[in-house]
Amino acid sequence: MSSIFTKIVNGEIPCYKVAEDDRYLAFLDVNPNAKGHTLCIPKQEINKLFDMEEEHYLGLMQFSRKVAKALEQTVECKRIGVAVVGLEVPHVHVHLIPLQDMEDMRFQRKTSLSPEEFTALAQTITAKV
Amino acid sequence: MSSIFTKIVNGEIPCYKVAEDDRYLAFLDVNPNAKGHTLCIPKQEINKLFDMEEEHYLGLMQFSRKVAKALEQTVECKRIGVAVVGLEVPHVHVHLIPLQDMEDMRFQRKTSLSPEEFTALAQTITAKV
Repeated sequence: MSSIFTKIVNGEIPCYKVAEDDRYLAFLDVNPNAKGHTLCIPKQEINKLFDMEEEHYLGLMQFSRKVAKALEQTVECKRIGVAVVGLEVPHVHVHLIPLQDMEDMRFQRKTSLSPEEFTALAQTITAKV
Repeated sequence: MSSIFTKIVNGEIPCYKVAEDDRYLAFLDVNPNAKGHTLCIPKQEINKLFDMEEEHYLGLMQFSRKVAKALEQTVECKRIGVAVVGLEVPHVHVHLIPLQDMEDMRFQRKTSLSPEEFTALAQTITAKV
C-alpha cells in the first residue's frame, strides 16, 4: 500500500505545498511542532534516509536547504531545526522546524493553524524559495 | 572564545573520535540519548547549519551519511535518527542517534557508558566507516 506521502505526491491527498521539483516535494506539516514546520520528501517512496543512494540523498539535502532558507525568511525564529525520524511513516521525510526553544524539537507540544493560515503561510514561503 | 567543539577539533579537549577528514570530525556524544549517539561537525566554527556554503553543507551531509551507515552496522537499532538543533552550542553539529523509539529523539531520557565502553564503541564504529 502507498504511504500517506506517496498519496500526497500523487495528489490523492491534498497538501499545503511549499516547493516541488522533479524528485522532491515540500509541504507544511498539518500537525506542526511550531508555525512553519515543513516536511521535505523524495517523491520516490523510500523507507530510510541512509538507504537512499548518495546522489539522491544529497539532492534531498540540497532541496531541504533551499526550503529552510525560505522558511527562515518567513517565520520569526532563532534558527531552523532539522529532524529525521521516520518511526511512524515509512517514507523519508526531513522535518524543518522554526525553533524558539528546545520544546519545538520534541514532537510533544503542538500548535494549530486554520486552513486559511496554512494556505497563506505556504504561499509566503513558496514565494521565497 | 572558541566553542567547545573547536577545542575538541584542536585537541584541547579530548573526545571519543569516530571519523575525521580535512574538514569534518565525528565523535561520540558524552551525554548520549542512546548508545552510539554521535556528533558530526565541520571543523570550521560556524553557528548555523543553513548559513554554511552549499558545498560545505553538502560535504557535512555526505560525511554524516558515511558515519551513520557505520553506526547502523555497529549498534542494534531500528534506524539512525538525525537532529540538528544548535540552541546550546553555537557550532554546527549533526546528531546521529540510533533509535529504538521516539524517546531517543527528545533529548530528555539519557543513557550512560563507562570510559572503557565509549572507547570500545568508538573503535568499533571507526573500523566500519
